[in-house]
Amino acid sequence: MAEAFVDLRSDTVTRPTAGMREAMATAEVGDDVYGEDPSVTALEAEVAALFGHEAALFAPSGSMANQIALQLVVPPANELLCDADAHVVTYEIGAAAAYGGISSRTWPAVGADIDPETVAGMIRPDGYFAVPTRAIAVEQTHNRGGGGVIPLATLRELRRIADTAGVALHCDGARIWHAHVADGVPLIEYGQLFDTLSVCLSKGLGAPVGSLVVGSAEKIEQARWIRKRMGGGMRQVGILAAAGRYALEHHIDRLAEDHVKAARLAEAVAPFGVLATAVRTNLVPLDLTKHALDAHALAAAARAEGVLISVLGPRTARLVTHLDLDDAAITRAAAALTRILAA
Amino acid sequence: MAEAFVDLRSDTVTRPTAGMREAMATAEVGDDVYGEDPSVTALEAEVAALFGHEAALFAPSGSMANQIALQLVVPPANELLCDADAHVVTYEIGAAAAYGGISSRTWPAVGADIDPETVAGMIRPDGYFAVPTRAIAVEQTHNRGGGGVIPLATLRELRRIADTAGVALHCDGARIWHAHVADGVPLIEYGQLFDTLSVCLSKGLGAPVGSLVVGSAEKIEQARWIRKRMGGGMRQVGILAAAGRYALEHHIDRLAEDHVKAARLAEAVAPFGVLATAVRTNLVPLDLTKHALDAHALAAAARAEGVLISVLGPRTARLVTHLDLDDAAITRAAAALTRILAA
Amino acid sequence: MAEAFVDLRSDTVTRPTAGMREAMATAEVGDDVYGEDPSVTALEAEVAALFGHEAALFAPSGSMANQIALQLVVPPANELLCDADAHVVTYEIGAAAAYGGISSRTWPAVGADIDPETVAGMIRPDGYFAVPTRAIAVEQTHNRGGGGVIPLATLRELRRIADTAGVALHCDGARIWHAHVADGVPLIEYGQLFDTLSVCLSKGLGAPVGSLVVGSAEKIEQARWIRKRMGGGMRQVGILAAAGRYALEHHIDRLAEDHVKAARLAEAVAPFGVLATAVRTNLVPLDLTKHALDAHALAAAARAEGVLISVLGPRTARLVTHLDLDDAAITRAAAALTRILAA
Amino acid sequence: MAEAFVDLRSDTVTRPTAGMREAMATAEVGDDVYGEDPSVTALEAEVAALFGHEAALFAPSGSMANQIALQLVVPPANELLCDADAHVVTYEIGAAAAYGGISSRTWPAVGADIDPETVAGMIRPDGYFAVPTRAIAVEQTHNRGGGGVIPLATLRELRRIADTAGVALHCDGARIWHAHVADGVPLIEYGQLFDTLSVCLSKGLGAPVGSLVVGSAEKIEQARWIRKRMGGGMRQVGILAAAGRYALEHHIDRLAEDHVKAARLAEAVAPFGVLATAVRTNLVPLDLTKHALDAHALAAAARAEGVLISVLGPRTARLVTHLDLDDAAITRAAAALTRILAA
Repeated sequence: MAEAFVDLRSDTVTRPTAGMREAMATAEVGDDVYGEDPSVTALEAEVAALFGHEAALFAPSGSMANQIALQLVVPPANELLCDADAHVVTYEIGAAAAYGGISSRTWPAVGADIDPETVAGMIRPDGYFAVPTRAIAVEQTHNRGGGGVIPLATLRELRRIADTAGVALHCDGARIWHAHVADGVPLIEYGQLFDTLSVCLSKGLGAPVGSLVVGSAEKIEQARWIRKRMGGGMRQVGILAAAGRYALEHHIDRLAEDHVKAARLAEAVAPFGVLATAVRTNLVPLDLTKHALDAHALAAAARAEGVLISVLGPRTARLVTHLDLDDAAITRAAAALTRILAA
Repeated sequence: MAEAFVDLRSDTVTRPTAGMREAMATAEVGDDVYGEDPSVTALEAEVAALFGHEAALFAPSGSMANQIALQLVVPPANELLCDADAHVVTYEIGAAAAYGGISSRTWPAVGADIDPETVAGMIRPDGYFAVPTRAIAVEQTHNRGGGGVIPLATLRELRRIADTAGVALHCDGARIWHAHVADGVPLIEYGQLFDTLSVCLSKGLGAPVGSLVVGSAEKIEQARWIRKRMGGGMRQVGILAAAGRYALEHHIDRLAEDHVKAARLAEAVAPFGVLATAVRTNLVPLDLTKHALDAHALAAAARAEGVLISVLGPRTARLVTHLDLDDAAITRAAAALTRILAA
Repeated sequence: MAEAFVDLRSDTVTRPTAGMREAMATAEVGDDVYGEDPSVTALEAEVAALFGHEAALFAPSGSMANQIALQLVVPPANELLCDADAHVVTYEIGAAAAYGGISSRTWPAVGADIDPETVAGMIRPDGYFAVPTRAIAVEQTHNRGGGGVIPLATLRELRRIADTAGVALHCDGARIWHAHVADGVPLIEYGQLFDTLSVCLSKGLGAPVGSLVVGSAEKIEQARWIRKRMGGGMRQVGILAAAGRYALEHHIDRLAEDHVKAARLAEAVAPFGVLATAVRTNLVPLDLTKHALDAHALAAAARAEGVLISVLGPRTARLVTHLDLDDAAITRAAAALTRILAA
Repeated sequence: MAEAFVDLRSDTVTRPTAGMREAMATAEVGDDVYGEDPSVTALEAEVAALFGHEAALFAPSGSMANQIALQLVVPPANELLCDADAHVVTYEIGAAAAYGGISSRTWPAVGADIDPETVAGMIRPDGYFAVPTRAIAVEQTHNRGGGGVIPLATLRELRRIADTAGVALHCDGARIWHAHVADGVPLIEYGQLFDTLSVCLSKGLGAPVGSLVVGSAEKIEQARWIRKRMGGGMRQVGILAAAGRYALEHHIDRLAEDHVKAARLAEAVAPFGVLATAVRTNLVPLDLTKHALDAHALAAAARAEGVLISVLGPRTARLVTHLDLDDAAITRAAAALTRILAA
């Protein structure tokens, strides 16, 4: 993608900074399939500690981290509950069912505005011949929910419901860092609410590659086998882990800047009635059902003005702020979008 | 189960009548795995014709008929939409995901009261990186929806939505005969609305065993292979097919009597605030959330009075009328339930 | 299939006798999904007792009985060892892998002439990062092995090997009755050598439909769930179980007659160099690699003479004797095959 | 792992050289999930060209590359043929069956000494009700076959057999570079014999992470989806691709040195009767069935002398030479093993 573009498609597009490259260039490495890569081992310990869990496991993608976690908590032919817009049943190419044999039922797509009673009402206990529910998954922040942040009180209520029912609670925490920054909830407080989490280093945090599954030592031991089955066992991957460690050290607090930038973009487009929800973090979801332009047309017009955006559906699109966008880029993008939407 | 009991647990408990036994005893049979059982071939042709489709295939259970149909219309890692209480994701032991690799998302459990726009809004087209929707499944009548009948207008709207989106529409028609009798809609009119149907001979129709998958000749040809993979290829199964043919001839119209009996039971329990929904067919769904008795307690008390009912959940139960219950049995059950609920 | 044909294709083509039909017509039945069909319960108890096991479970086909057993003894992603011609990896439409997620490795196709050391050498124990072996499957008698009978001594050695390695031993015993009759080994003696068996009522024994999985009470309890997931839960299936009970009582010892008839057919074709192996039971395997006729040509010529045979491959075919063939039919078939092969 | 050890466990333990680190540090990168990472794109094009194929796809591991390829060429419930010691059914944690639903049958474990007629005899064509064979997989060089090299003539005969039967031929070419160097066969000549190949950068070639699937443009397009389903879609993974490109440029020809070193080790242990097969490349397979020491004891004794070796089974072990071992290390290891085996 030419440098000239303001790339609002995703926070996955960021490139490693000079400091991060330096960390990779000097990383101490070993064969991680043998558990001998010191950079990976250190990263896994750091992330486990951040969330107050015993262990963590590096994975090549957020999808693999999620799918490993789901396979850990839901045996084949058992059930996962999640929302109808959850990343795990939307953007992971059907892996939960196709590879994990996991049956899923969904509550309506309400993004971060989960009604715990709705979830509680869907749980199927053992003993009534129905497919038993084994886990509930939530997404923090919520990708298709426009970067919404699930309130701590909601999560606590879900934890209580999961405990009562004896089911696991998984967090797809690809962007949990954003929730932490937006709501000021310590990561460890989030961590304690979940049996398993996936967290991503290569979205807002700016590392080139990598996610982690977080959980108990026993679960992470099993996760190693599942990761190998999924083809995620890598050798001297400390190169990437070093970038991840750098990102954890330098790029969490700065997410606040991305949130401010997203708010600026939201402010620019709101007058045209295309803002799908209030913006809380670094995602700006657009709903074009009432606008003359559809999503493809908007994206094409924006590209012509040097701005790249993501098309999510015929009438839905998304702007994302991240590490590689400075204030000038946001100004330029806001102006372009204003022009286009006003036309 | 001792004869002394009034068995309201399910319409699956009926035993073959004398006439049906005679039909089985004299059935002409052959090796159906080789396609040489004349009774099976005749039954399949009759059922296909009833629903205006090219072909049908006998299966040992409603679950297998549904799962064959789902594997026909949804490839592994692709998506099925259905309601959160659908039999296919509730009572089929996770087969869609575990054996078919089928990803599912669900609309809320509203039984037969489907909002077509809700369904339309959930369909995911190809081309946006999300798991593509390949089929929508509805259930007529709806088992956990208390035997509710989806209105013809709703089905027509769903057909239109499915056509627009290019997805298949499957009907779990285990009790479609009841809908036909309750709403007076010809079976062939139902049949034309669906790409595939499963229909059951061993519930309300009173045959001992058997369901059929109904669809195009091409699909049913593939269905033969899937049935064999699922272990449903049987040999001289014309014995059972003969019972099914007898049931089709003699037991459809009489379902109206079961509906009347269910209405009598509903009338008996309604004053105690435990009727979950209005009764349309042969199922009487009980919701005990506001009653002193929970479902297990009610079932135990009823059993002590010689009446058997089904417990579906901690606070949900079900009464079902069928071929083996005469008026006296219903009178006796109504009286017993009234006594128990009033106590 | 017209009655005029001598049908040597398979022992699955037999039709119920008058006595068996009578047994079906008068069978006491109930809802077997609720465990309330007395004919099924009796059959399951009788078959379990025959093989000295705690329990058995009725299934609609031999394929389903095998696949249930395999899913019982081999978790997904673990390994089954069997021979390269085993029914479980040849004629069950890939179900072990596709539905059970079971990895398989095979020893060469030697039919009943198993070398236990070859099998022992293939077992992969836990702890070396290789897919661990969980079960060994053998087939008695061996279908593609021409009805060969695995000697008792071989089976005992395999049992010892399985015990040493801590893996399960499964017997696909669709035609174990033939082995029992041919070698005079009591069924209970066979039964004690295996963790699980499948046995079939609808091949040599002449029942219209049905197989059973045999094993421990605990395994058969799990088997019930797997059967339901595979769609094999049936209702008043005592109709079929009654036929099975009749077959067990009347049709085991008479298999000796089928073996004599197969020997007569073997004698007729042997001079033409097309007998694949010595004939031990009711299967006569033909290897046409050195004959002018290929398998399709032979089958066509035989059909023209009123004899039906099975084509197994381009140059392999099979004759099978069974309950529905009298001496005259065998005489007629032998004469026809002699004429054709001599031409 | 302490530097003091001579690490003969695997060629996966190598660490990036200074030149390779420099290549990573300066790599141009982008979001490869969007197809925008120039280093990845260049690597994929280079590898495709090396093997004379249209396209290639980067994957995080050799296991994933193999499993993607198998899912490309064998649909669920269809069949793969390979040898009983093949990596794809031994060391990939059952993924072919568990995730791909792929049924497998195996020819005996003869390493590189494949008898093409044995393979030909196992192929099952469509049309005979048996699970149809869709692909044959070979492994070049053969890992458990002691690094043996399949002769070009054998591969050509397998290609002819595959073409005749209409099945695909896959090469697990994790160490195909070694075969190229040992036999002097151009990579492009190997490439033309296979429908799909997997090749690995992180074994003998010394890159930290990465393998590629190679095939037609159409297949690689599908492979992208499968990779994402398996969780192998990575973002700025050009960091790793740059190391791979460096490895291709600098580390192929030097494999000859590793082969010489392996021969030295083989010479040292041969007198003790523990060399499993002749050594052709960089693997030295040990068979301890006739030696007093078992594999664990040998490994423990070697470790005590500062030499690390791999235990593959109770009586089998392996020595591997690679980029990070100089002549002195080999001398030291040879001496230590000689002392231990002679004791």
